[in-house]
Amino acid sequence: MKQNKYDVDSFFENYSAMPRSTGGLEAAGEWHAFRELLPELKGKRVLDLGCGFGWHCRYAREQGADAVVGIDLSANMLERARAMTSDPQIEYRQLAIEDTEFAADEFDTVISSLAIHYINDFALLCRQVQHCLKPGGAFVFSVEHPIYTALAAQDWHFGPEGEKQHWPVDNYHLEGPRQASFLGHEVTKYHRSTATYINLLLDSGFSLRQISELQPTPDMLEMNPAWQEETRRPMFLLLSAVKL
Amino acid sequence: MKQNKYDVDSFFENYSAMPRSTGGLEAAGEWHAFRELLPELKGKRVLDLGCGFGWHCRYAREQGADAVVGIDLSANMLERARAMTSDPQIEYRQLAIEDTEFAADEFDTVISSLAIHYINDFALLCRQVQHCLKPGGAFVFSVEHPIYTALAAQDWHFGPEGEKQHWPVDNYHLEGPRQASFLGHEVTKYHRSTATYINLLLDSGFSLRQISELQPTPDMLEMNPAWQEETRRPMFLLLSAVKL
Repeated sequence: MKQNKYDVDSFFENYSAMPRSTGGLEAAGEWHAFRELLPELKGKRVLDLGCGFGWHCRYAREQGADAVVGIDLSANMLERARAMTSDPQIEYRQLAIEDTEFAADEFDTVISSLAIHYINDFALLCRQVQHCLKPGGAFVFSVEHPIYTALAAQDWHFGPEGEKQHWPVDNYHLEGPRQASFLGHEVTKYHRSTATYINLLLDSGFSLRQISELQPTPDMLEMNPAWQEETRRPMFLLLSAVKL
Repeated sequence: MKQNKYDVDSFFENYSAMPRSTGGLEAAGEWHAFRELLPELKGKRVLDLGCGFGWHCRYAREQGADAVVGIDLSANMLERARAMTSDPQIEYRQLAIEDTEFAADEFDTVISSLAIHYINDFALLCRQVQHCLKPGGAFVFSVEHPIYTALAAQDWHFGPEGEKQHWPVDNYHLEGPRQASFLGHEVTKYHRSTATYINLLLDSGFSLRQISELQPTPDMLEMNPAWQEETRRPMFLLLSAVKL
């Protein structure tokens, strides 16, 4: 059984209350960096792996995408996503990312936001995405950063006064599952190194276009001083690659 | 004045006593990973940025390189390098990496081992290397890993019993100089994020081929249990790129 915490009611309720769930993309800290990595979407067929409430699917259509397919394993998530659009060019399918089986060259662009660190076999996923992308098509995704997932506790090291002293890293090269806590539930995240993310992409026939570790910009710091914390350790890794 | 600690006698003496100085490439922990990133060197013209004692230059000739140029700012280092070879196809020049000015398309391969984290302007260096490489030529280099250079102390966080508890990361996105201690002297290293290393390469007209964060292999761990520590946090970042 693939992981599907979003159909556990108390988990879903907590997720639904998060700023990114009520406020959409603008309330998601990594959205601006993610958007910058996206190719032109006008006239494109787009696949969103782990689409959740469908914010990215609707964004793609707003940008002129011809058609969008969003997949997610959670019935709760898809029900909410479907309720938020009447667009016949957006299709939501209840499907685990691991079970993605699309036709060759079916999409121009594949995106995924903060879902792939829940996936065990990234090499397999690269092959699946490579298969269903057209040559020249883009694969753009965000994950929790390897510095952030290395230790399951995913928290700062605190000093004697309770201050955030530094971010602890350990077991960086011991890739595999981490039992982390999210929204009051235990979830399994899969830690991989940055090298593994990049090399598996390159080995699967992608060319790397750009990466981001979400360095806060001066604008971001001015608008929201809480971003200062994000200068201390990277929380997100975003990659943009193109099928050769 | 570019940094040149290797001509400070006490620093040079300490460096000369390091295993990698007496034992050569096989005594350098990152050498096997570095070698795997190298292209075929037979018949190639090779440039080594920060060649030190010339181990990599001699290796390139052993692999059949036509000609090798090694540059280093340190007279001490080059004197030792020159004393270790009578090969007329190896030329050593006393030159700072920052002052590299070679003709367009002069080299097939540019390598650099653990020198570029002493260089302030990596964007400029990328342009210089891009200029002197032939199209299709490889740029392969190692640096101290951004996780390792983020904090100037470059040391573990120790627990109450003096045990290595974890590796502390902070100020990851605050790129720039770090006053670090090496061989009993203060040296200036330049911290850059992994994203900066990769994006500047890509922006300068390189295609990324492979990266390594020096994950110890089971063989390495069996031969030398001290490598266990290197599974905990990456100390080195190695990149292999090709001029488009």
